[in-house]
Amino acid sequence: MSNKQPIGFIDSGVGGLTVVKEALRQLPNENILYLGDTARCPYGPRPAEQVIEFTWQMTRFLIDQGIKLLVIACNTATAVALEEIKAQVDIPVIGVIQPGARAALKASQTGKVGVIGTLGTVKSMSYEKELKEKSPTVSVTSLACPKFVPIVESNQFLSPVAKKVVAETLVPLHNKYLDTLILGCTHYPLLRPIIQNVMGKKVTMIDSGAETVNDLSTLLDYFDLNNYDLNDNKICKFYTTGSPKMFQEIADEWLDIRDLIVEHISLDD
Amino acid sequence: MSNKQPIGFIDSGVGGLTVVKEALRQLPNENILYLGDTARCPYGPRPAEQVIEFTWQMTRFLIDQGIKLLVIACNTATAVALEEIKAQVDIPVIGVIQPGARAALKASQTGKVGVIGTLGTVKSMSYEKELKEKSPTVSVTSLACPKFVPIVESNQFLSPVAKKVVAETLVPLHNKYLDTLILGCTHYPLLRPIIQNVMGKKVTMIDSGAETVNDLSTLLDYFDLNNYDLNDNKICKFYTTGSPKMFQEIADEWLDIRDLIVEHISLDD
Repeated sequence: MSNKQPIGFIDSGVGGLTVVKEALRQLPNENILYLGDTARCPYGPRPAEQVIEFTWQMTRFLIDQGIKLLVIACNTATAVALEEIKAQVDIPVIGVIQPGARAALKASQTGKVGVIGTLGTVKSMSYEKELKEKSPTVSVTSLACPKFVPIVESNQFLSPVAKKVVAETLVPLHNKYLDTLILGCTHYPLLRPIIQNVMGKKVTMIDSGAETVNDLSTLLDYFDLNNYDLNDNKICKFYTTGSPKMFQEIADEWLDIRDLIVEHISLDD
Repeated sequence: MSNKQPIGFIDSGVGGLTVVKEALRQLPNENILYLGDTARCPYGPRPAEQVIEFTWQMTRFLIDQGIKLLVIACNTATAVALEEIKAQVDIPVIGVIQPGARAALKASQTGKVGVIGTLGTVKSMSYEKELKEKSPTVSVTSLACPKFVPIVESNQFLSPVAKKVVAETLVPLHNKYLDTLILGCTHYPLLRPIIQNVMGKKVTMIDSGAETVNDLSTLLDYFDLNNYDLNDNKICKFYTTGSPKMFQEIADEWLDIRDLIVEHISLDD
């Protein structure tokens, strides 16, 4: 059986593009719909109830477009909304936290794992919970990095400002002897070279979004949802609640797709 | 939620122990029940209908013991019985072919992939189908190696005989310019050093069983079936329809478990 319905990806903004990039590489046959709630980004500082509400709005929008599987490609939204949404919708739903935590446990030799994420993700303790449940002896150091998402969303992730902010923000992780650092926000892989440079070469970076694509492949196989139809004109469409221009600039730089289609939509009731 | 029910593994004999070994490493909290149908091994040369019947017998036995998820840790049985069993039982069921095929596509740079397996697996064309559906341009060379399973089951996998048989059997793969070789039988990882030596260092070996454990972790997370209860006395129990002594010798050598419990059972009606 071949299923040409698109896979849906949602994020507070452009962060989920790091997940899409890996999906395009590993799953080149799949049609993709993406929705970034750029107008209300960042989600990190918002109360959980509001993030849940916004995530439901995005979910309903993409389900109405006929997606076959939903990836909550945002750590903040995964932390507070995954369980509820997964339980209530009819399609498979996956988030980015469990795959990231699992990859970190596999990668770490010393059991000293760091997690960087938004305020919301860090406050939710979701990574700590996942890591500790599976490996009670692991030591977890978490750090909220509220300045990172705005840098990425304003397309400054390669700038000298980015270098300065990353270096200053990560100071509390010095002398923690971490051997593994979870990039617990899908925006952060765009800052990865700078983060790696600050943390040092010996620290293994875990890209929670890229890890999620492994789970996505597994679930497409498990639920028999793969698209094998190669004659199909491939759909890869992006929706944003914010400025399509800024979104397109970042997407063009990060992904390698010609004629990227970005459409503005509104989610407010 | 924590679920202490065991995970079930079934195989025609001791081959599935290569999957269990990886499961013990990646999922140390989980309780495990294993059933090897050693008395009727090998499955490879048997007609598909018979393999399906035997696989159902093993499945029913372990479901009666209360497993929460079944791994068909045998390529021959996966090829012919996975779809039917998965559709008809109430617990999640996974096989070893899709994970192996997926890993091979990820690993191969040149798109020239080899598959070695039993007569049954090779005749089923299951790997070709999986590989070609996902990547139509991949070139697949399959080879049945009917002598490998008996060598492993008779605990001769480190012997000079094993070296000779492996070298002779793999001659048809010379000059095929393969860069990736799927060990499409869970017995074969016990012969891996010999196979690697014959194929050369540059060929990447894909252990379909070990890859399956990644899928297993994903599904335990997805269906919320993990065991987090560490105070539990861990169960790791092995059933065989054949000689417990021979089974135990191989299991002792391959796994690193003290006081391995091996019990003889009968599956014939």
